[in-house]
Amino acid sequence: MSIDAPAGIDTVPVPGPVLVVGCGLIGTSVALALTHAGCRVHLRDISAYHAELAESTGAGSTSRPENVALVVVAVPPDHVAGEVVAALHDWRDAVVTDVSSVKVLPMLAVADSSGADASRYVGGHPMAGSERSGPVAATAELFEGRAWAVTPHATSAPHAVEVVRALAERCGASVVVMDPVEHDAAVARVSHLPHLLSVLTAAQLEVGPSAHLVLAGQGLRDVTRIAGGDPALWRQILRANAEPVSDLLRSVRADLDALIADLEAVGVDAGPDAAPGRAFAGVLDRGAYGTTLIPGKHGSAERQELVVYVQVPDKAGELARLFTDAGQSGVNIEDLRIDHDPGRPVGVAEVAVRPDQAPVLLRALLAKDWVAHL
Amino acid sequence: MSIDAPAGIDTVPVPGPVLVVGCGLIGTSVALALTHAGCRVHLRDISAYHAELAESTGAGSTSRPENVALVVVAVPPDHVAGEVVAALHDWRDAVVTDVSSVKVLPMLAVADSSGADASRYVGGHPMAGSERSGPVAATAELFEGRAWAVTPHATSAPHAVEVVRALAERCGASVVVMDPVEHDAAVARVSHLPHLLSVLTAAQLEVGPSAHLVLAGQGLRDVTRIAGGDPALWRQILRANAEPVSDLLRSVRADLDALIADLEAVGVDAGPDAAPGRAFAGVLDRGAYGTTLIPGKHGSAERQELVVYVQVPDKAGELARLFTDAGQSGVNIEDLRIDHDPGRPVGVAEVAVRPDQAPVLLRALLAKDWVAHL
Repeated sequence: MSIDAPAGIDTVPVPGPVLVVGCGLIGTSVALALTHAGCRVHLRDISAYHAELAESTGAGSTSRPENVALVVVAVPPDHVAGEVVAALHDWRDAVVTDVSSVKVLPMLAVADSSGADASRYVGGHPMAGSERSGPVAATAELFEGRAWAVTPHATSAPHAVEVVRALAERCGASVVVMDPVEHDAAVARVSHLPHLLSVLTAAQLEVGPSAHLVLAGQGLRDVTRIAGGDPALWRQILRANAEPVSDLLRSVRADLDALIADLEAVGVDAGPDAAPGRAFAGVLDRGAYGTTLIPGKHGSAERQELVVYVQVPDKAGELARLFTDAGQSGVNIEDLRIDHDPGRPVGVAEVAVRPDQAPVLLRALLAKDWVAHL
Repeated sequence: MSIDAPAGIDTVPVPGPVLVVGCGLIGTSVALALTHAGCRVHLRDISAYHAELAESTGAGSTSRPENVALVVVAVPPDHVAGEVVAALHDWRDAVVTDVSSVKVLPMLAVADSSGADASRYVGGHPMAGSERSGPVAATAELFEGRAWAVTPHATSAPHAVEVVRALAERCGASVVVMDPVEHDAAVARVSHLPHLLSVLTAAQLEVGPSAHLVLAGQGLRDVTRIAGGDPALWRQILRANAEPVSDLLRSVRADLDALIADLEAVGVDAGPDAAPGRAFAGVLDRGAYGTTLIPGKHGSAERQELVVYVQVPDKAGELARLFTDAGQSGVNIEDLRIDHDPGRPVGVAEVAVRPDQAPVLLRALLAKDWVAHL
């Protein structure tokens, strides 16, 4: 695996014209970024309405191109392999890439397709998205600073790899070159498994009395946020990555079985002298350690930050007033998180700043009558 | 279950003196809130150093009280039952409560203890916490607007229930009266299960190559945030609530088994015509639906909100400038979330406002040269 810095001005140009197949959020955002960068972009979608919507945002033209140098396949996961193979057939001189979240399946489809020139296909996967979908949600800046996995296979032509790399860089992304098998294992771990465990948590909410939810806090909201994602899309993604995901799920099941066995050994009358469950200790420790491995979070953060906690009354203008007062302190705010239970008259804003700046911000806010502490 | 509004000024007074046993984050915060409300508070901790630290923050006195009207037990979960029973023995006229996250276990300990006057014990559980711990992290406002479960048992005296209710209200919390068994089932579902599934997700990060984590995004961070919590504390909480938690884990295992069976039936060469897994469709749908049940979030929100997405360059002063510009727009900001990958030169701030206010804010930000969209 190799990681490059985002593109400078003298990147290899993206050859044109470019055909974007699929005018959803990702396809239209790619088209917008390329159009803004001066490329000629053609748009195609199974829905003429979607293609016209994308055209109306300035993403490109719905006219059929005479020739195409690059095809970007941006269709739902179930249709990626078919569209990639079709593009290799239809455009005999074009490099073909896709932007879907699983990379082995389209690679195998290309290899299995008689007559498809596999050397012109290089997979790609921009790590960007939104809770919204469709061409209207698209923006040229969607990929700005995001990782974009570029996944050449054994017979990808070097030229094709360079073109796909140029595409990612032109969209403002940071290129990460990975083997397709390694890529699929990675997204199974950092994206597909978290999604499923978020779903399994949220699925238990349906079963219980709704009165239980009055005790819900920010932790439940954080864990279940992504479970709200489109079930139809996720079914396609997970089935396309079935093997790496089921390997991980079996590993999780082994941990889960150990936890259940441990808990069943605890009677409700077990006092502090009962033997602590070894499985529990092990899994909890591994989990806490795992969180420190995520780049830029928890213990491993490259930049150290301190949090200033500020109480924000839930009434008109209070958050805006906080923003103004924080802005006037001159302190650079690195990150901000609001813990706000609905119906609670007060929320807590967690304002992360450089450690040496924390006392400055705290003093400035206290001087403006905020209830704040480190 | 019943839910009351936060206290007005003419709440039943908290009888004094109050003895707080355990000067961690929660105990010291209770002591601070009561002291600020004019109560006489005494502090005790197994660590004299912690008790003195709490005293130095103005939370109360470490001197031994002559008499006590209310004991608040705020020790780690393994020690709650023992300290509650001891308090009932030591202070023959006092109402005794605790603030731990599991309520059946201390109730049974009191019932089983010969000579302990169970009528004077009423459990409690403020739904508040912090990623920090210890007396120095304490604040009198920790419980402001939070739910505080008050869990009388069959033989709790009405007077004792009133005193514990007054305590919660005096701390600024909203009282939720619940049966102890119902409480433990509720926290198993909305707090203990989410914690364990967050841990199981994070525990898989340790096993894989660290290079996989370069593809990590905000979803993984959200799901695993709470897994960073103190493993020793969580082991105690989960063992104290073993039965409701293992019931839920068995239910999750049934879903997990179905998912694994479904995935194993999918070959990596399964095309779009393969039969969709019924388990997948069912679990993904139930998960997405479950997220709509959480109060104030997703589809079920009482107050409708629209999100304005704003690009925030990662350089000094930009977030502060956004706060100032947003503040000057006069629009009331309901909620705010920042999606910021470390190392990414641009973050996205999601600013939630009332739907009719979204265009106003958008116009104001665009006029100040922000890259923003609805």
